[in-house]
Amino acid sequence: MPTTTALRLPSASPAPAPLLVVGSVAFDDIETPFGQGRRILGGSASYASLAASYFAPVRLVGIVGHDFSAADRERFLRRGIDLTGLQTDLSGPTFFWAGRYHDNFNRRDTLATELNVFAQFRPELPPAWRQTPLVLLANIGTDLQHHVLDQVEGRPFVVADTMNLWINLMPDLLRRLLPRVHLLVLNEEEAAQFTGEPNPWLAGERLRAMGVPSVIVKMGSHGALLLHPEGRFALPAYPVTDVRDPTGAGDAFAGALAGYLAATGSTGLPALRQGMVYATAAASFTVEAFSCERLEAAGPDGLAARHAELLRLVAV
Amino acid sequence: MPTTTALRLPSASPAPAPLLVVGSVAFDDIETPFGQGRRILGGSASYASLAASYFAPVRLVGIVGHDFSAADRERFLRRGIDLTGLQTDLSGPTFFWAGRYHDNFNRRDTLATELNVFAQFRPELPPAWRQTPLVLLANIGTDLQHHVLDQVEGRPFVVADTMNLWINLMPDLLRRLLPRVHLLVLNEEEAAQFTGEPNPWLAGERLRAMGVPSVIVKMGSHGALLLHPEGRFALPAYPVTDVRDPTGAGDAFAGALAGYLAATGSTGLPALRQGMVYATAAASFTVEAFSCERLEAAGPDGLAARHAELLRLVAV
Repeated sequence: MPTTTALRLPSASPAPAPLLVVGSVAFDDIETPFGQGRRILGGSASYASLAASYFAPVRLVGIVGHDFSAADRERFLRRGIDLTGLQTDLSGPTFFWAGRYHDNFNRRDTLATELNVFAQFRPELPPAWRQTPLVLLANIGTDLQHHVLDQVEGRPFVVADTMNLWINLMPDLLRRLLPRVHLLVLNEEEAAQFTGEPNPWLAGERLRAMGVPSVIVKMGSHGALLLHPEGRFALPAYPVTDVRDPTGAGDAFAGALAGYLAATGSTGLPALRQGMVYATAAASFTVEAFSCERLEAAGPDGLAARHAELLRLVAV
Repeated sequence: MPTTTALRLPSASPAPAPLLVVGSVAFDDIETPFGQGRRILGGSASYASLAASYFAPVRLVGIVGHDFSAADRERFLRRGIDLTGLQTDLSGPTFFWAGRYHDNFNRRDTLATELNVFAQFRPELPPAWRQTPLVLLANIGTDLQHHVLDQVEGRPFVVADTMNLWINLMPDLLRRLLPRVHLLVLNEEEAAQFTGEPNPWLAGERLRAMGVPSVIVKMGSHGALLLHPEGRFALPAYPVTDVRDPTGAGDAFAGALAGYLAATGSTGLPALRQGMVYATAAASFTVEAFSCERLEAAGPDGLAARHAELLRLVAV
């Protein structure tokens, strides 16, 4: 990774550990009250790996189809992301999703989901990547997340994201995933849906009781909560005032957080707190434009500036 | 005020300035999914003055009827609250409100509002109280809030609360109140309703543009935001996991905050941040029981403990 594209973290190790990101790469059609995007780059692994690339060398595992161009690949390569694990399946197009946001972004309708080549996706880790010390299971089917963990070697720290779809479709697989994961990241509604507990702190405790040591409950514009074996942490959101497209905010949050942990080589409470501040900054850029545009344009200086602003905002 | 009932604040002046609290004193019938309370002590001035009494000597201005007993008065006197300004009108009963909470407290129906002696209430400040340096206009009609400010002397720091009722009934009076107030405290929905701006930061900026230097936007279980001439601040809520009755949480918040400002003699950004942490602690006790019971039982040590816990929770 070109060092000029990474943040200079006071706490970073001289040679940051790489981060393995497994998730979806997609093209999205998105309509919001403020505009629309057609066939724009999306998918959980896209947002997560671009956000993570500000912190650590990223190894991306995913699948794309015949319509994924050299220019599309270049967006990842420009940020030093290793695409050795990005399978190309020429038998069909890339995963496609179309959605529409309403009512000041409080409601989202899915207009189309075309799995395309993603339907046959089985994430296979290149042999040299099996020992990656930090693994982010970005938002994909829980069965695929298990399949990734079946291949990893050593004892990596595993961060997992999920969504309502998998909670509905494969709750048992998700329950079995929790003891294999060190940090689960999910949003307030998903935590309530999976545990039956509307209070996010209590929902987080229930998830911890199911075997995952740490849980982050995201609450969108209301911030995020962390339950960790060493203690708890609550962080307000960055005060975004111009939301254009909320797609990918959670993926960017998870990516920046996992990238920060890889960069610092620490997964203690202080590292998770700092990582959440960077994750919040990454999410704030993501929602200010369609696709990954603002996230890519922010640069290390942009992220560092919002990190500093957030620290000032929450300091008592 | 007996010093044993007040918090020992490191930043408190040796003789804390008194705080004038003007608002309603009421009896409430309240039903929640978890129980009910009958003819329990309520009203904005009750919650606010009891919360404030942990920090500074409180001067209460309000009105009660023939049914307000010596035992009711004793609850205030026990906390050192000066009731010289509490009018007793023997011609009728005390202000009565009945309400029911539904759906995990997200919705509230008013079942009855009987103004009783409150209908004739004109808050009159005892002459010796007109110079009080800190004034809290707790939640009452905006016309009455103006009437209080017409009587104050010197240049007190004025904190004002309001609610949707007054925003609907007397928006022009509220607009004219803002330049007479130094700090407005209101919740997210009220800020959106009054300004037409759903984003709480932008709504706060609009309110500041109308002439009030500082604004706190409360977001219930999602915390509170401060916009102040010296900067901004965002604070998560205390992680309450056992809400019994949310009535009065906002009043207790405003009371503890104003009391803290009186106690420290400071209204700068650092004092407001600390005051919001105490205010959040006071609100958290308030919602854990009907009426003011937990707020009264918490004691200075209880408040100090939650203040410390909140500081640990938000420290990055």
